[in-house]
Amino acid sequence: MESTALLVIDMQNGFLAPSSPLFIDGAPATVPACGRIIAHCRENGVPVIFVTRRYRADGNDVEKARRELWEAGGKPLSPGCSPEIDEKMPPELGEGDYHIVKPRYSAFFATELDLLLRRLGVRTLLLSGTTTPNCVRATCYDALSLDYDVTVLSDCTSSKTEEIQQSNLRDMENAGAVVLSSQAWMEEVK
Amino acid sequence: MESTALLVIDMQNGFLAPSSPLFIDGAPATVPACGRIIAHCRENGVPVIFVTRRYRADGNDVEKARRELWEAGGKPLSPGCSPEIDEKMPPELGEGDYHIVKPRYSAFFATELDLLLRRLGVRTLLLSGTTTPNCVRATCYDALSLDYDVTVLSDCTSSKTEEIQQSNLRDMENAGAVVLSSQAWMEEVK
Repeated sequence: MESTALLVIDMQNGFLAPSSPLFIDGAPATVPACGRIIAHCRENGVPVIFVTRRYRADGNDVEKARRELWEAGGKPLSPGCSPEIDEKMPPELGEGDYHIVKPRYSAFFATELDLLLRRLGVRTLLLSGTTTPNCVRATCYDALSLDYDVTVLSDCTSSKTEEIQQSNLRDMENAGAVVLSSQAWMEEVK
Repeated sequence: MESTALLVIDMQNGFLAPSSPLFIDGAPATVPACGRIIAHCRENGVPVIFVTRRYRADGNDVEKARRELWEAGGKPLSPGCSPEIDEKMPPELGEGDYHIVKPRYSAFFATELDLLLRRLGVRTLLLSGTTTPNCVRATCYDALSLDYDVTVLSDCTSSKTEEIQQSNLRDMENAGAVVLSSQAWMEEVK
């Protein structure tokens, strides 16, 4: 466990608030499990790295395919976010937690994440957060490409439907990631 | 069509030969459709970029999760490849085609692809090749992250099972890619 870090990806109101056009149906139900694994990692000296999405208020960095929906739907994940979505940025961090802002799907894309992990001596990434098919999976493939060992926490990740969740967990397992529940991971590493 | 390029990903014997441990069941059936779209693009001045995987003969750059299978199964995609798999590298290129070697899933990861596309003035990528859940999809997400428009050719891409193929096409469409058959694409752009 000593060369492990926990990534908490995109657990922010732009994806968790039902009023957001980018709402992920499965995400709110994962909040308790995410809370437990975060607490467990903090207690056991495993670095916790929050990765959040942030767009500019004018939206010129929103993915092209998402731009119209974003503009019409209250500009989530940006400083121009509507009060109904109530985007909090940055997240509330525990003492010793890290925070990285990412502009795209993968937590490695145009960020300092790989540098941070090298300095921390991390070789294994625990992935939690949302959404499984987009940001979690893109991060998983970049991590595998960079020779990290990857464990995806099945009950701490989420999708719009259960079928999307399961097909993506299967594909990541086929690509070499380990898929475990957070409870199983906590029991295995104890 | 003038700012479009066709990517042909990993169409090599390491994935297409049944004797390879990395064989993709759905891949051989896509060869004719790939051939037609390649010919069509060449005739219409659309750059054709072959992207292939190549490992070193000693295997020190094979993904960790794949290393054992690779070693025991005849070292496909490398200069040490067994004669049964008959890896041809580089592929046979048409006049004016491009060739890029990639070390990992995404055609953008640690390659000059983005530089090449900028110089060619490409803004739309047509994706063909194998496998849909790994190399095609990782390339798709990087392309979307880099603001390319992406069209995935459904009959020119392949997976181990039809269910994997369909669930991955759906996820890429949800993320903003266009999914079309090669026939539909050729008719639409004519």
